[in-house]
Amino acid sequence: MTCFMDLITSLAGMKAFSRRVRSEGNKLGLVPTMGALHKGHLSLVGRAQEECDAVVVSAFVNPAQFSLDEDFARYPRDLPADTATLNPFRVDVLFSPSAVEMYRQGSETFVEPGSVATPLEGACRPGHFRGVATVVLKLFNIVVPNVAYFGQKDFQQTLVIQRLIEDLNLDVRLVVCPIAREPDGLARSSRNAYLSPSERQAASVLYRSLWRAEELFGAGETKAERILEEMRKILDAEPRANIDYVALVEPTRLQPIALVTPGSVALVAARIGGIRLIDNTFLGSPGGHVDPRRAGSP
Amino acid sequence: MTCFMDLITSLAGMKAFSRRVRSEGNKLGLVPTMGALHKGHLSLVGRAQEECDAVVVSAFVNPAQFSLDEDFARYPRDLPADTATLNPFRVDVLFSPSAVEMYRQGSETFVEPGSVATPLEGACRPGHFRGVATVVLKLFNIVVPNVAYFGQKDFQQTLVIQRLIEDLNLDVRLVVCPIAREPDGLARSSRNAYLSPSERQAASVLYRSLWRAEELFGAGETKAERILEEMRKILDAEPRANIDYVALVEPTRLQPIALVTPGSVALVAARIGGIRLIDNTFLGSPGGHVDPRRAGSP
Repeated sequence: MTCFMDLITSLAGMKAFSRRVRSEGNKLGLVPTMGALHKGHLSLVGRAQEECDAVVVSAFVNPAQFSLDEDFARYPRDLPADTATLNPFRVDVLFSPSAVEMYRQGSETFVEPGSVATPLEGACRPGHFRGVATVVLKLFNIVVPNVAYFGQKDFQQTLVIQRLIEDLNLDVRLVVCPIAREPDGLARSSRNAYLSPSERQAASVLYRSLWRAEELFGAGETKAERILEEMRKILDAEPRANIDYVALVEPTRLQPIALVTPGSVALVAARIGGIRLIDNTFLGSPGGHVDPRRAGSP
Repeated sequence: MTCFMDLITSLAGMKAFSRRVRSEGNKLGLVPTMGALHKGHLSLVGRAQEECDAVVVSAFVNPAQFSLDEDFARYPRDLPADTATLNPFRVDVLFSPSAVEMYRQGSETFVEPGSVATPLEGACRPGHFRGVATVVLKLFNIVVPNVAYFGQKDFQQTLVIQRLIEDLNLDVRLVVCPIAREPDGLARSSRNAYLSPSERQAASVLYRSLWRAEELFGAGETKAERILEEMRKILDAEPRANIDYVALVEPTRLQPIALVTPGSVALVAARIGGIRLIDNTFLGSPGGHVDPRRAGSP
């Protein structure tokens, strides 16, 4: 296989590449990932390539954003597969540092995000966004991108990072890309690979609950409690699904709302078997929706 | 008065200056201060000018590093005086942003330093180093210096910042400059201006206690408890002084030591009247000491 991109594993190597690219006046894009690349990631890569002169994809499974009872150890890691996936896209660099390189012995300084990190994922995964904010800041400092590309699937994460950028005066622009979905609406995620065939079938229930919210809102329902009730009904009807949360919030500070308006966000987190999945959608946003009733099988 | 330097108050203006300086390949030095400039600050400025092509002095009284019961409101602020003090030195920029500009409404992301921030000042001033680490990171992101100059007087602060730089992968070199002292040994500090004449006289007791430690160590005493006892005696003999702490620690993680070796650090914090002062010294370090018994009056 001809390799079109550089694989960089050292921080010094990454910094040297970035310094050269930036000093030549080029615009550098970063797509931070935890590897296990899928079409969702590739849509971020595509957007980065449209907008930037050089693109770095980072693949780093960040221990700091997993708690001890989570799936850090078994999170999928396959650098050769990621290299093969990415190679045809001719990004400039796949940056894949080791955990020891990223967190040197004695490392103890962390970024604490504020109230936007508290509800929803923050409540279910204590310390998660502290780990996310810290590693994203570290990646920004190592890669020094002009623009960073994140997926809307991790909606709360994008708010945490936007606050990080503003509050700490970083010179990075955040671009949030639409959620890439499977034909039945399931949001693409590295964790989907964990699902058994029957769990995979059941997993579309997250999207179906969001679709129901959109449907109700489209038909004129604005009472949040009424929409949430209907979303829960759909999730409860799937015996393999256990709800972590279903929420309707305003899109900047994630405050729960009583009345839904265009731009309100519906979010859902549920465990399908042992696999925790999340999804969300802006209500009343034109386009971008897959009708699960017209979709094919996964 | 002919003004030899730019006064910049906006973040955008500061970033534009830095970008220009750096893009021309110049080495940029930052001297972060809270204003109320004294000879200690000027020694940092001198060092920065020796080593850099351009020098920025920031003057910002950072609300985030004061707790509610501390002296934020009355901390000395006098921009015209600072401008006059600095002007003859022909630094390139005095950067003096407002608190509203530095902490935009809704700002909620903070840097949490680790164990090195816990004892001593961290124990006496909860949240202090969180505020310090956050504002220093913000200043680094706004000014983008190659080198930053801090004084050894705030010894624990320099360790917090060194960890910040390493743990968050910042491209800044930290230079720690020796403590500038008054003729009687009192470490120069903006807070010295608060002292009444009799308090000012008493304030040299901090240095005298450090001197005693150095004297004992020089005479062969290595038992930390014995040296601490003698330091406390000196401080206790000064009726205007109330000890916050007296400590002998190793110089990287501030762990208390039982036996003193060359390079161990003696630290003292005490309130003279209502004014809290700190000081420290490396034991067994050649030179740099003022013998308080041979010094003149303040």
